[in-house]
Amino acid sequence: MELKEMGALAKQASYSLANISAKTKNDALEAIAAALCERADEIICANRIDVDAATENGMSKAMTDRLLLTKERIDDIANGVRKVKDLDDPIGETIRMEKRPNGLEIGQKRVPIGVIAIIYESRPNVTADAAALCLKTSNAVILRGGSEAVNSNKAIVKIMQDAAYGAGIPEGSINLVEDTSRETAAELMRLREYVDVLIPRGGKGLIKAVVENADIPVIETGSGNCHIYIDEKYDKAMALDILINAKTSRPSVCNAAETLLVARSSAAEFIPAAFDALKEKGVEIRGCEECMKIYPGIKAADEEDYYTEYNDYIISVKVVDGIDAAIAHINKYNTKHSEAIVTTDYFNAQKFLNEVDAAAVYVNASTRFTDGFEFGFGAEIGISTQKIHARGPMGLRELTSTKYVIYGNGQIR
Amino acid sequence: MELKEMGALAKQASYSLANISAKTKNDALEAIAAALCERADEIICANRIDVDAATENGMSKAMTDRLLLTKERIDDIANGVRKVKDLDDPIGETIRMEKRPNGLEIGQKRVPIGVIAIIYESRPNVTADAAALCLKTSNAVILRGGSEAVNSNKAIVKIMQDAAYGAGIPEGSINLVEDTSRETAAELMRLREYVDVLIPRGGKGLIKAVVENADIPVIETGSGNCHIYIDEKYDKAMALDILINAKTSRPSVCNAAETLLVARSSAAEFIPAAFDALKEKGVEIRGCEECMKIYPGIKAADEEDYYTEYNDYIISVKVVDGIDAAIAHINKYNTKHSEAIVTTDYFNAQKFLNEVDAAAVYVNASTRFTDGFEFGFGAEIGISTQKIHARGPMGLRELTSTKYVIYGNGQIR
Repeated sequence: MELKEMGALAKQASYSLANISAKTKNDALEAIAAALCERADEIICANRIDVDAATENGMSKAMTDRLLLTKERIDDIANGVRKVKDLDDPIGETIRMEKRPNGLEIGQKRVPIGVIAIIYESRPNVTADAAALCLKTSNAVILRGGSEAVNSNKAIVKIMQDAAYGAGIPEGSINLVEDTSRETAAELMRLREYVDVLIPRGGKGLIKAVVENADIPVIETGSGNCHIYIDEKYDKAMALDILINAKTSRPSVCNAAETLLVARSSAAEFIPAAFDALKEKGVEIRGCEECMKIYPGIKAADEEDYYTEYNDYIISVKVVDGIDAAIAHINKYNTKHSEAIVTTDYFNAQKFLNEVDAAAVYVNASTRFTDGFEFGFGAEIGISTQKIHARGPMGLRELTSTKYVIYGNGQIR
Repeated sequence: MELKEMGALAKQASYSLANISAKTKNDALEAIAAALCERADEIICANRIDVDAATENGMSKAMTDRLLLTKERIDDIANGVRKVKDLDDPIGETIRMEKRPNGLEIGQKRVPIGVIAIIYESRPNVTADAAALCLKTSNAVILRGGSEAVNSNKAIVKIMQDAAYGAGIPEGSINLVEDTSRETAAELMRLREYVDVLIPRGGKGLIKAVVENADIPVIETGSGNCHIYIDEKYDKAMALDILINAKTSRPSVCNAAETLLVARSSAAEFIPAAFDALKEKGVEIRGCEECMKIYPGIKAADEEDYYTEYNDYIISVKVVDGIDAAIAHINKYNTKHSEAIVTTDYFNAQKFLNEVDAAAVYVNASTRFTDGFEFGFGAEIGISTQKIHARGPMGLRELTSTKYVIYGNGQIR
């Protein structure tokens, strides 16, 4: 199908979807979950083609494993869809309603955004997750996954379409762009007539391409150059726990720490213990000159390191004068994602919370908590690192817009 | 000053601004209002240069009058600044705060967006309005007005800077791009490193240029192709009042009506009375074939007319089958701004509210009410016609972002 045609159908479907009942949507989500389990063989078959191609193309084992779908993993995907089903439907809520002096009753209602396009590079489970979240919020979705997962994505989407459309969801609500060429991606980024918002999920390169080429509104997600700052007064055991957790519990994700900042007065005490613990976990350390004096034998960090989201067992470290220097460093190098201070000082805690420019700012906790589930939203479509519309983990509410509805009885101005 | 340098200074200022007290901001706004009145002669002097140039360049009388600043108009501008001062400060409000099962206290706080760039073509009062709204919400602002008002804008901004910086607002908080070339505008649209959001205010051409060229988040404003739909059952006197008000009370603004849709069963009764009333107000009527049969002598409307925001004493008219055809027409041709139905039918009223895709949808009231002051926000930076971040009139709250602040005591994941 031509992309424009797909867009037009999605737009048309979005108008019907906007007024469909929560019950119909939930029935469809249940039907989707059941169908994914029942037709798991179809998905596994299609997935094998992707995995074989990946192996032939020399994809790394870790990456190939991310691509692989098994019966168990498909069950997990289905359960994810059921979890979305069980959340409250945000659509139709009246956020506020006021009677104006002239008698007009002006209400602000929560409505779907319309058509959401998602360009992603991730594992095929994103296909089902994203489609379920969009359906739950009455948005039509246009999915454009990576070429490495195209057969798996086609199988998953076909099953979701069959189940959803069979349960009363309008055709055109769930769409997959099967042509994974760059040209089609570029066309999707400019499908202004039909797409209301574009959410890229993936690496720096993808986000950059989308931001530079899209002419439809974009919600940036994902890039996380996160810092842990150890203040002058701090609890050493807590600091070690938080540092190791933030760096090593899952280094590939966006809320993992990439840089450690240490107040100069704490450096001599904290750095040896911290570096021992990091090395024990297999983390490569790249430090400033002061670090290297305290703990010889580590690599030197350069300017580029402080800008880098390694997503790996590597950390850059810098000794700073204190809280002000730490905040200045973070606001210069960070990607506005998640930042943490470890401190026992009340005023420094407040200063850090107020002055650090990021979606999530922590006192005495790991940056790893920046996540829709951990924040209690029950689901997540991504983590916004921009400042408009949504900032931080995006749950159902962040997939909605609002509309003013005005009840009059003949008012003119 | 180089644009990049201005951006860097604005960004720096925005960090201090974020944590400045409401009192300091209000004192600065009062100082600005007082200075605008005291130094009105400077503004009038500078404005004369702009007005003389406009006259020489053959600008229309109406446009030249929009450009003209008098002592009275400057007093009005100062009073506008004082009105912004009197509004509640939205910054720092904790929107919600929750204690998670693991003991983390997660709060969502209202914070400034950071640096807001505004590209506008309007009258010089926008300069003071926009700067005051940004200051009130602790945002640094980069203003880029039109070349026709550059001298007036320079004078106004100089006075605002002197007053604000003298009252404790950090330097770099209020900025004017004095070079009004297209190249500089294009550079501003891509000043991603320093600008958090770009708000264009002006005609279709400006909005289009911004949307296509900007790589920073944009909030679209302003374009309004608004419709009045007269349903099958309706109050004729009310319908005439609303139509005439929406079309003729101020045809140049975005919430004015541009197209009249009439249900076929109401056409024979409503159209003659409506067209008589429109003609009496000097409105040119462009109608469909059915209109022309009912009321011979009017011009024919073509497809292009239905897409056009005339901003003038012109209206396009179409007879439609009924509510469904009206909604389909509106969703196809509108700019998602403001739409109204005149009806006595409960179900059609609800259907229209639910199914029309627009920022503001009215039952039995004029579209002219879509306005920050009429909605009770006390101020307005523009009317958003996009679906993310803000939709409809944007007041102070729409100039803010949020930040998650998390209080922990050693939590790791």
